[in-house]
Amino acid sequence: MPQNIYDNDSFFAGYATLARSQKGLDAAGEWPALRALLPPMQNLRVVDLGCGYGWFCRWAREQGAASILGLDLSEKMLARAAETTTDPAITYQRADFSALTLPAESFDLAYSSLALHYLESLAPLFTAIHAALTPAGRFVFSIEHPLYMAPSNPAFLTLEDGSRIWPLDNYLAEGRRETTWFAPGVVKYHRTIATTLTNALAAGFRLTAIQEWGPTDEQIAQHPSWADERIRPPFLLVALEK
Amino acid sequence: MPQNIYDNDSFFAGYATLARSQKGLDAAGEWPALRALLPPMQNLRVVDLGCGYGWFCRWAREQGAASILGLDLSEKMLARAAETTTDPAITYQRADFSALTLPAESFDLAYSSLALHYLESLAPLFTAIHAALTPAGRFVFSIEHPLYMAPSNPAFLTLEDGSRIWPLDNYLAEGRRETTWFAPGVVKYHRTIATTLTNALAAGFRLTAIQEWGPTDEQIAQHPSWADERIRPPFLLVALEK
Repeated sequence: MPQNIYDNDSFFAGYATLARSQKGLDAAGEWPALRALLPPMQNLRVVDLGCGYGWFCRWAREQGAASILGLDLSEKMLARAAETTTDPAITYQRADFSALTLPAESFDLAYSSLALHYLESLAPLFTAIHAALTPAGRFVFSIEHPLYMAPSNPAFLTLEDGSRIWPLDNYLAEGRRETTWFAPGVVKYHRTIATTLTNALAAGFRLTAIQEWGPTDEQIAQHPSWADERIRPPFLLVALEK
Repeated sequence: MPQNIYDNDSFFAGYATLARSQKGLDAAGEWPALRALLPPMQNLRVVDLGCGYGWFCRWAREQGAASILGLDLSEKMLARAAETTTDPAITYQRADFSALTLPAESFDLAYSSLALHYLESLAPLFTAIHAALTPAGRFVFSIEHPLYMAPSNPAFLTLEDGSRIWPLDNYLAEGRRETTWFAPGVVKYHRTIATTLTNALAAGFRLTAIQEWGPTDEQIAQHPSWADERIRPPFLLVALEK
C-alpha cells in the first residue's frame, strides 16, 4: 500500500493552505490544459482516482456526468469531500490504488490528478483501469513530471554566472524519492516519461495526447513566481484510449 | 532547408573519428535498444532518413530487406556510403527532410537515427513518412534526447558538495540551439518529448514503444566514461505504426 501521507495531521493542514485546495480546479495552473484533454462529460460514468476534496467529482457532475465514483486512500480527504455534496450521483470510497479492483467495463472515463506518483508500480493499476473502462473509454491523468521528481535535491539553484538551473542528477535512476512537503518523509516514485507510457501501452491503451505542462506567458504575468516552472515542467498530462 | 553541417570539412573529419563512424552500428551504445524496436527485416522495403555512411542500409540488406533507400542531405556522406556497396537493392539519394516527398505507400519501414533534431519542424516530415508507408508500416527513430539539447550550457557540472549535475535551464523553451561539436555553430532544434509525440499522433501514427535511452550497467563497466549519460539520457528512441 502506498504511504497515506494525506492522513498525516501536519500534511493535511499544510495541503489545505494550497490555492487549489481552497479554490478548486480554477486555481490549478494546469487545469485548463488538463480539461482540454477530457471528453464531453455529458452522461459519462466517471471514476476519479485520488479525488481529494472532490473538486473534480463535483465539476464532472455539473458538466452532466451520469455518475462519479471518487476514490482516495485518505480518510480525512474522503470525509471532507463527503461534506461538500448530497448528490446521490457522486459516491466517495476509500481505495488502495496499488491493489485496486473495479467492476469490468463500467466506466467511460477514468481520471486522476497528481496521485499516480505515490505508487511504486503503475502496471497493476493501469491494467485494472483498462479492464474497468468501456470499449473506447478514456483515461486522462496528470502526474508530477519526472524532471520535478528525479533530483536528489529538487530545488532551483542560482549559479555564479547568475543563471538559474534545475540540478538534474539521476534521471534514469527510477524509484523511491523522499521529500519534505508540508511534512518530512513524503514518499514518491520517480519514473521516466517513457516508463509511464510503456506501462500504458502494455496495459492495452493507445496514447491520444501528451503534454509536459508549464505555465503560459499569461499565467506567469498573473503569477510571476511561476516563471521557474518553465525551466523544468512540474506536471505531465496524458490522455489514453482503451 | 536544415543546416548541412556534415558537408563542412572540419565537421566531416571530426565525425569520422567517432567509434560509430569507424565501426558501425555495434559501436553505438543505443543500437541494441534501437534494434529491439525494429520489425524482422525479411522482404521489407526500407527508407533510412539520415543514412550517413550507410551502416544501417547495409545491415538491413544483410537481414533480408528487399530494398533500401538511403537518404541524406550530405553529399560527402552519400559519396562515402556509395563507395561501400555495389548491391543494386541499396540506393542512396540526396534529400532535404524539411521538404521531403516520397512515393505513396511504398515502404514497409521508415528508419532514422539521430537526424531529426536538425529539423526546425517535424510535422511536414512525419506527414510525408506516414503517407509513404504501407498500411501498418513502421517508423522507428532515434533523436537526441530533449534533456541533452535543452540547456544553454549543455555540459555536466560538479557542485561544491561534489555532486555531479546536468544544468537544465530552459526545458520548455523549444527551438534553435547552437553548439560546438567538431565545428562551431552546429544548429539543432530542441523539442520536448511531448511535442515529438504530438507531431507523430497528429500525422496519424500510433505509438508502439518509447525509450529514454541510457547505458546499461554492463555497458558502463566496459565504457566507464559513459556513466554520466545516466544523469540525463542522451537519446530518445521511438517506434510508431501507421
